[in-house]
Amino acid sequence: MIIVSTTTAATRVKRAFNFNAGPAALPLPVLERIREELLDYRGTGMSVMELSHRSAEFEAINTAAEQNLRKLLAIPEEYAVIFVQGGGSMQFTMVPMNLCLPGKPVDVLHTGAWTAKAIGELNKGIPYHIAASTEGEKFLRVPRAEEIKLSEDASYTYFCTNNTIEGTQYHHMPASNAPLVADMSSDIASRPIDVSKFGLIFAGAQKNLGPSGVTVVIVRKDLAERADKNLPTLLQYRTHIKEKSLYHTPPTFAVYILSLVTEWMAAEGGVAGMQERNEAKSKLLYETVDGSSGYYHCPVERASRSLMNVVFRVGGSAAAHGDEALEKEFAKRAIAAGLIGTPGHRSVGGMRISLYNAVGLDAVQALVGFMREFQRTRG
Amino acid sequence: MIIVSTTTAATRVKRAFNFNAGPAALPLPVLERIREELLDYRGTGMSVMELSHRSAEFEAINTAAEQNLRKLLAIPEEYAVIFVQGGGSMQFTMVPMNLCLPGKPVDVLHTGAWTAKAIGELNKGIPYHIAASTEGEKFLRVPRAEEIKLSEDASYTYFCTNNTIEGTQYHHMPASNAPLVADMSSDIASRPIDVSKFGLIFAGAQKNLGPSGVTVVIVRKDLAERADKNLPTLLQYRTHIKEKSLYHTPPTFAVYILSLVTEWMAAEGGVAGMQERNEAKSKLLYETVDGSSGYYHCPVERASRSLMNVVFRVGGSAAAHGDEALEKEFAKRAIAAGLIGTPGHRSVGGMRISLYNAVGLDAVQALVGFMREFQRTRG
Repeated sequence: MIIVSTTTAATRVKRAFNFNAGPAALPLPVLERIREELLDYRGTGMSVMELSHRSAEFEAINTAAEQNLRKLLAIPEEYAVIFVQGGGSMQFTMVPMNLCLPGKPVDVLHTGAWTAKAIGELNKGIPYHIAASTEGEKFLRVPRAEEIKLSEDASYTYFCTNNTIEGTQYHHMPASNAPLVADMSSDIASRPIDVSKFGLIFAGAQKNLGPSGVTVVIVRKDLAERADKNLPTLLQYRTHIKEKSLYHTPPTFAVYILSLVTEWMAAEGGVAGMQERNEAKSKLLYETVDGSSGYYHCPVERASRSLMNVVFRVGGSAAAHGDEALEKEFAKRAIAAGLIGTPGHRSVGGMRISLYNAVGLDAVQALVGFMREFQRTRG
Repeated sequence: MIIVSTTTAATRVKRAFNFNAGPAALPLPVLERIREELLDYRGTGMSVMELSHRSAEFEAINTAAEQNLRKLLAIPEEYAVIFVQGGGSMQFTMVPMNLCLPGKPVDVLHTGAWTAKAIGELNKGIPYHIAASTEGEKFLRVPRAEEIKLSEDASYTYFCTNNTIEGTQYHHMPASNAPLVADMSSDIASRPIDVSKFGLIFAGAQKNLGPSGVTVVIVRKDLAERADKNLPTLLQYRTHIKEKSLYHTPPTFAVYILSLVTEWMAAEGGVAGMQERNEAKSKLLYETVDGSSGYYHCPVERASRSLMNVVFRVGGSAAAHGDEALEKEFAKRAIAAGLIGTPGHRSVGGMRISLYNAVGLDAVQALVGFMREFQRTRG
């Protein structure tokens, strides 16, 4: 296996080019900092994992994580920022539990596997309306503004900003009179957004913000008051808002890493800096795919192409299909070249390259070099 | 601040004596191993945090964590072992959601703050019966067998094996015809138990098993089938059983650490070895308290004293009361002596010393030395 070597303070370590879809690559300086502080966090004689969540040290970490996110995303004061457990999947349940109003349906823009999971939970008794769906086109694009047919009285409008599996992304946010609720798990903090246009945003940390095990919820405080107080305590947003994410023992180490990743982002130019990096990385990769005389083929509509998850097929000439044997060989040889995580999701096949914030342009350069060589020898 | 120094492979690090109630001390060899593998997990070129949860490497970690626990606790085949998120607090909701049978109440043995939280969730519409309570005695003991009045048709009997805040512990498990459900968050794997006597056991990892952010549930498989399939997917035990804790992205790093901590326990003599250590540590501390001519005073009934959380008051002669000013000074001077986490829970005051598996006898020796010196100079 060919791998990158990087010299760090203590030792030389091997590092792969990591295109995993999540959990995913973390910034090397963050990992180095974690390692440095692992046995003794800033003179406490304890690891962050060993600190009480009621200690001044951890409270400072918790506050820093929140404040870093507030600054990065310019989150207005009337929004709460909380850290919860359970990932995006728990939000598929918590969002309707907390935000549904009696007799008012949920409007859903259906764009693939993740909105399907959210719909699966709504199917357990919550009225909803599919306001748009691109299922007829195999989810190879997001809906256009004129295709979205909203209800007059929706509790909220639900969508997923970036579809990890299908490789699509909204480049213009949909408009809605009802509060806009976004699953932003796979593109949060990858670009500037106007938080004030949303009612609620959630994101599992394990793509752009940190490790798995912590989920960020940004919610307009008045909306959190819609919830029935008889709901399970832990499933009410207001519980976590009131206690600043410390109602019960939080996933302390994951919150600590999130504080470091957001600090790293701020130092690297904030979300505008991230966007610039992400545009450069995805441009290089899409150009390589598009410039391969059809050897590589991206089935996604151009206007909907994701900057986070680039999907393509290998060796196929028919639209949306690839040569599966070649694709397997591509993935296998990629690993041998130190390029990890290139296969597409098992439900759709093909290749998928995830280009989250922590993935460097050098990784994409290595990948496109590999792609050209693969085409030359196997094309 | 006086602190312990320990020499590790790379550097000399300062380590405190950590008596935190949870998150709590972790075994030093485990922390060293985490540090060693942090940037490159066994030649993958990635941190465990950066591995896909669908990768062979993480699946091996997940399996090891489960198998280690199965071996340590001698868990029979008919029980599932799953890793979920949300801590014990989420179990206060999940247990009744999954295990209640129509028309059959939950029997509860009420022994303090944690059973009170479980009751708080039952109060949201689930019929229950307090089969025993020691509230009248300020929870300074657990109920005796003859005091427990069970229903004839309970869905299950619920109790908390170790009460972190009150410093009490069951040294004989209650008997029940209905499935016995135990919150074992603060004494799991601290001693041998007969799992076959239980219907369900749950435990947040952050005391004896690892960091916060992962919760272990050991459940008899047939009981998991009681749940309504219309419940939120993530809140059904069967979802996690079927997918071996990989239905959605798990808290991968926390599961990895749990696999290391359980490996460490096995090497240290398993749960019998842990019990021996815990008995020696708590004996030394209780003897110091009891032998202080009343300067230190443990309010807990002897037969109910916890081996995990030793509570005592300082300087008071009246039962169950201490001299609060002296107790504050004790905690302050303890920190200066490198002894962290000695204050009792804010709801009860006094001191609380948590002696989880990873706390060494050397820590308790340092503490009792400090206590004798404190009594000599301030008594």
